[in-house]
Amino acid sequence: MNFNTKEAIEILKRTPQTLEYFLTGLSDGWLQSNEGEGTWNAHEVIDHLIEGEKNNWMPRLEFILREGEDKAFPPFDRYAHLHKVNEDTIKQALLEFKKIRAVNINKLQALLNPDVHLELKGYHPDFGVVKVKELLSTWVVHDLTHIAQIVRVMAKRYTTDVGPWSEYLGILKKN
Amino acid sequence: MNFNTKEAIEILKRTPQTLEYFLTGLSDGWLQSNEGEGTWNAHEVIDHLIEGEKNNWMPRLEFILREGEDKAFPPFDRYAHLHKVNEDTIKQALLEFKKIRAVNINKLQALLNPDVHLELKGYHPDFGVVKVKELLSTWVVHDLTHIAQIVRVMAKRYTTDVGPWSEYLGILKKN
Repeated sequence: MNFNTKEAIEILKRTPQTLEYFLTGLSDGWLQSNEGEGTWNAHEVIDHLIEGEKNNWMPRLEFILREGEDKAFPPFDRYAHLHKVNEDTIKQALLEFKKIRAVNINKLQALLNPDVHLELKGYHPDFGVVKVKELLSTWVVHDLTHIAQIVRVMAKRYTTDVGPWSEYLGILKKN
Repeated sequence: MNFNTKEAIEILKRTPQTLEYFLTGLSDGWLQSNEGEGTWNAHEVIDHLIEGEKNNWMPRLEFILREGEDKAFPPFDRYAHLHKVNEDTIKQALLEFKKIRAVNINKLQALLNPDVHLELKGYHPDFGVVKVKELLSTWVVHDLTHIAQIVRVMAKRYTTDVGPWSEYLGILKKN
């Protein structure tokens, strides 16, 4: 087990600004690129991250602290952001993500006592019993997953452009 | 074909500062993590990126512009950075990467005439004939590959910590 609250927060803090730095000002060719039908471009990934801040991580933590493992927490719709009419620019989405993440980290730090809460259990609608430390670890890995997704989607734009070098570039074969 | 010199430079410009923002100040637990024997931690990835700036991308471009396809360009040792005694901190490595990348982008912009040079051919020691635009596309995808690698390595630190959520987190099964 490697989870540690302080280290987890180091990543959670960095994700929004890392993505903001990387994505702001990029050409539409990069920003609108996806991996084909039913896959997400960078903007859709940011919207999904915002959705997680609103309806997944902190709400579930609060639910566990309040309800324990007797009551399953409500399922999280991983596609919720796709059903909304969204006229934000990616710049606005990045700003919103940065703000709501900062609020959630403050809330987490105020609410969580790592000595007491990490082993507490909740009830996941699909998985059954889960622990607070698993939820928080997943929050971190979820960030990293979506950073990796954004750069992979961009890499794939050049799948044919790299010519024979594709042999060395495993990222072009992943999903 | 999607390659476009201006857009390619957008990524090349952002990589060092994106990594600097993401990695600076992280705990050693994150920075020293790798995927097991023979794999790289974040610092080793940065050293490899620096090595590429010194001995791969721009030197090969200059070689092609000078020699054409008659002479194979010298092979690039992808493990060169592992043979060197390196006492830099990751902060120093990130700064070196940022500086040398900026120099190389300036050199590229001064040297390359996209209307004339992109279709020029060189001779790769393993692949045979390659084009300038393929080399430059590979430079970009190589950046994206290593950003993805760094976040994947970090994600894997929490492979067991996420508990049953690992089912949803494909990144933990990749290499």
